[in-house]
Amino acid sequence: MEKKYSIGIDIGGTTTKFGIVDDKGIIIEQGRVPSNKHEVVEDFIDDLYEGLWPMIGRAGGVKNIIGIGMGAPNGNLYTGTIEYAPNLKWKGIIPIASLVKKKFGLDTKLTNDANAAAVGEMIYGCAKHMKHFITITLGTGVGSGIVIDGKIVVGHDGFAGELGHTVIRHGGRLHKSTGIHGSLEAYASATGVRETAIELLTAHPETESLLRDYTINELTSENVYDCAIQGDTIANQIFDLTGEILGEALANFVMFSSPEAIVLFGGLTKAGDLLMKPTRRSMEANLLPIFQNKVKLIYSQLKEADAAILGASALVTAE
Amino acid sequence: MEKKYSIGIDIGGTTTKFGIVDDKGIIIEQGRVPSNKHEVVEDFIDDLYEGLWPMIGRAGGVKNIIGIGMGAPNGNLYTGTIEYAPNLKWKGIIPIASLVKKKFGLDTKLTNDANAAAVGEMIYGCAKHMKHFITITLGTGVGSGIVIDGKIVVGHDGFAGELGHTVIRHGGRLHKSTGIHGSLEAYASATGVRETAIELLTAHPETESLLRDYTINELTSENVYDCAIQGDTIANQIFDLTGEILGEALANFVMFSSPEAIVLFGGLTKAGDLLMKPTRRSMEANLLPIFQNKVKLIYSQLKEADAAILGASALVTAE
Repeated sequence: MEKKYSIGIDIGGTTTKFGIVDDKGIIIEQGRVPSNKHEVVEDFIDDLYEGLWPMIGRAGGVKNIIGIGMGAPNGNLYTGTIEYAPNLKWKGIIPIASLVKKKFGLDTKLTNDANAAAVGEMIYGCAKHMKHFITITLGTGVGSGIVIDGKIVVGHDGFAGELGHTVIRHGGRLHKSTGIHGSLEAYASATGVRETAIELLTAHPETESLLRDYTINELTSENVYDCAIQGDTIANQIFDLTGEILGEALANFVMFSSPEAIVLFGGLTKAGDLLMKPTRRSMEANLLPIFQNKVKLIYSQLKEADAAILGASALVTAE
Repeated sequence: MEKKYSIGIDIGGTTTKFGIVDDKGIIIEQGRVPSNKHEVVEDFIDDLYEGLWPMIGRAGGVKNIIGIGMGAPNGNLYTGTIEYAPNLKWKGIIPIASLVKKKFGLDTKLTNDANAAAVGEMIYGCAKHMKHFITITLGTGVGSGIVIDGKIVVGHDGFAGELGHTVIRHGGRLHKSTGIHGSLEAYASATGVRETAIELLTAHPETESLLRDYTINELTSENVYDCAIQGDTIANQIFDLTGEILGEALANFVMFSSPEAIVLFGGLTKAGDLLMKPTRRSMEANLLPIFQNKVKLIYSQLKEADAAILGASALVTAE
């Protein structure tokens, strides 16, 4: 009997999402476990097993499963290891592909989480038929997947496409887990939006804002969005500034690989036009004329996390 | 009789270099014409013809020539046009490949000048056998050629690889011909070094410097080098600052495509270790740990301009 299903796992900074994918690219069942509560990776894998094993059972057992594809921050396609991921608790080099393979008894492949999302977008999403595009994930951190000539760019060592860690503001805000100042991730992530909120609220104590009703811990990008659509000035400034910085970075990326489109994913994209408008304006303003008004800047049309799960699962089915 | 020779033409911001290349990649004869003195491109082509036609004659005439390969700023491989090149006098869209073809009666192809240099480096230079590398030309301007999986990256529209125009200092020095503030080219070009010299000399009127013996017009990157090797403090600071900014930009590029090497070309590389040391230090300091101490940072071993002439000529011989 032919194996019908593959498994896609997307390890994010906060949450790991996983799903069973059928041969038409439909996620027939999915679940999630936290990524940031286990000090050692084996405990994380135990949790993952607890969530995923019953699903495998309902799909007819391992005999029905082709294999497991995983996406993770700093995941290396060549070695199957997560190496020094700044947004994960497990430090050093983590041989996660071989650990998962052993636990489940299934062939397991790993790639960078954002690369997995780019593959999902290329196979099932709005980048279908595109040969040159970049995906940027605006989540807890900022991930990226770069496609050139229809192929994911992994570079000489397997780690290419870490655009969230490029510096866009020399001497700017400290990104705590890397020690880099002024990287894109320090601004255009959920964490960055929160920091921008705190900075603006502190810098303008005289300006009234609905955001002042939240405690520091409650100041999330979602709450900033809620206040912004109610017309709150500071909340709107937060998205304007985030978009301005993101747009400048995107302009730099366009001048590198001249993509047909940039596809934005992740939690921050829920802000819709509040983020899209300043981002697009800033990107265009920072491009050389030859690149202006050419690049499609779009939000992913795939359900959140689906792209990464689908793209990860494609690691084992594309062979 | 088989055609033995090809022609490579490298159009730079100041000078155009051209040569007749034999089937072993030897430049058997070469010459140059200025690029920046002709208001209309037809006059430039007339000058080029005057220099090149006698060489073609000595090579046995057009019957011995496969074709002409050209590299130019904003040169587009797909269309054969130079489009809105900020460092050239000819504005708008210049159909230079068809004009040269008509003038010489030879098949003519065009690409970006820095891409041509990258091809030359890949076929004849220190990037031989490398599948992932970036070349950066530090001349009048800053050009770049990006190779991924053994292929030049031209992107969706043919214009990829304009790394000199990426912004590395938000709100920084104005780059006059583009209007962009803080682009790499505003600092890490011969023009940028000159501006840094003027800025530092003006900012520190109390500091003695050999550079003060030069008139403003004489303040070239060559003179800064001459003073720096004599131990002049400001001259050394100029290269330190240039290297610091260049290294930050290179770190960003590494996190994009994770190349095996970055090959530096062009006039500024004559500064040797004076530029290389601060550049390397700054690049490493700005990289995520996973990228540190991996990327070879090297000066091109090809004679200046040879790489671009050879790479351009390969446009017509590689078929």
